[in-house]
Amino acid sequence: MLTLRYAPPSPYVRKVRIAADLLGIPLKLEAADTVSPDEAFLGQNPIGKIPVLIEETGERYYDSRVIVEYLDHHAGGGKIIPREGKARLDVLRLQALCDGILDACLLLIYEGRFREPAMRVTKWVDHQAGKVARGLAYLEAHTPPLDRLPNVGQIALACLLGYRDLRFPDQDWRKDHPKLRAWLERFEAQVPAFAATRMKPE
Amino acid sequence: MLTLRYAPPSPYVRKVRIAADLLGIPLKLEAADTVSPDEAFLGQNPIGKIPVLIEETGERYYDSRVIVEYLDHHAGGGKIIPREGKARLDVLRLQALCDGILDACLLLIYEGRFREPAMRVTKWVDHQAGKVARGLAYLEAHTPPLDRLPNVGQIALACLLGYRDLRFPDQDWRKDHPKLRAWLERFEAQVPAFAATRMKPE
Repeated sequence: MLTLRYAPPSPYVRKVRIAADLLGIPLKLEAADTVSPDEAFLGQNPIGKIPVLIEETGERYYDSRVIVEYLDHHAGGGKIIPREGKARLDVLRLQALCDGILDACLLLIYEGRFREPAMRVTKWVDHQAGKVARGLAYLEAHTPPLDRLPNVGQIALACLLGYRDLRFPDQDWRKDHPKLRAWLERFEAQVPAFAATRMKPE
Repeated sequence: MLTLRYAPPSPYVRKVRIAADLLGIPLKLEAADTVSPDEAFLGQNPIGKIPVLIEETGERYYDSRVIVEYLDHHAGGGKIIPREGKARLDVLRLQALCDGILDACLLLIYEGRFREPAMRVTKWVDHQAGKVARGLAYLEAHTPPLDRLPNVGQIALACLLGYRDLRFPDQDWRKDHPKLRAWLERFEAQVPAFAATRMKPE
């Protein structure tokens, strides 16, 4: 069986878990500490990030974009990532956009986690928050369809919106993004793995 | 012709420029300011990052990983990214590792650019510098081959090492990484676009 080094809150991990569930690929979950990574984990990924997918042979793959491609290939190919052409590039672009917005979200979280309040810098926080706000506004104006078997762009969007709920519950994205709200309701109704991988705000 | 929104120092832009040159695809370069992005650029990429590739139709693609796939597809496919299987995943993993190390390098640069010295946080700097050091050590221990037509993993590695030269010239990576040093010398001798896209340290 494939092993996934993971942590429950990670949106990139969640993307992989939902993809695997949709493709019918079981994963054995094994926690990893990314803030104080141990030697065994660093031996699996020298930059100490999750998710990492590990085959029974010991071969490992990262990052999440490579892993979703691995899983799609494992499932026969062309399932959650179109095989080629514009359809493929459009899906990968949507994934890149959602992952990029998530990168900004995580930098905002790290700003709180690694720095005392007096050490936080407004210019940096505003720079990242601007990416999030503009990214969500773009997605509201260009809300993607929802395929019967959601593609990795659509899975990434659901994980982005779920991460806003988890880490920024006081900033209610639903208020100003009614199309995304309706889209996520449909996604959740259609994809049981979304609720199954939800982590409650602490 | 395809247009690339770019800035000369960006290692992700450099990856795209080298890929395009190797594939014989001309690009029209157009500068973009990512620190204070203007409305036109944000209309092309809401999160304000480079590179962005723009077709004559106005259709645009990001981020660099999607663009290199676009370029490979444009050139017929299977040129700088193997079409499928383990060969493909290995190349994509090497690209993900080098991009991940670069992400840490850029966070170190931003630490200086967005924060006065008194506002910098050792724990964060050490966290990112650890990723860089371990990543380079891993690559020294597992130096990849160099294909006659370099693949995107190999191009990404060259851009990572070039970025260390540009932004961290006082930290001589060559001293402790003789295999990577020899590898980059071969890459540079083989790929004229590497020297053509080099930016001198300021």
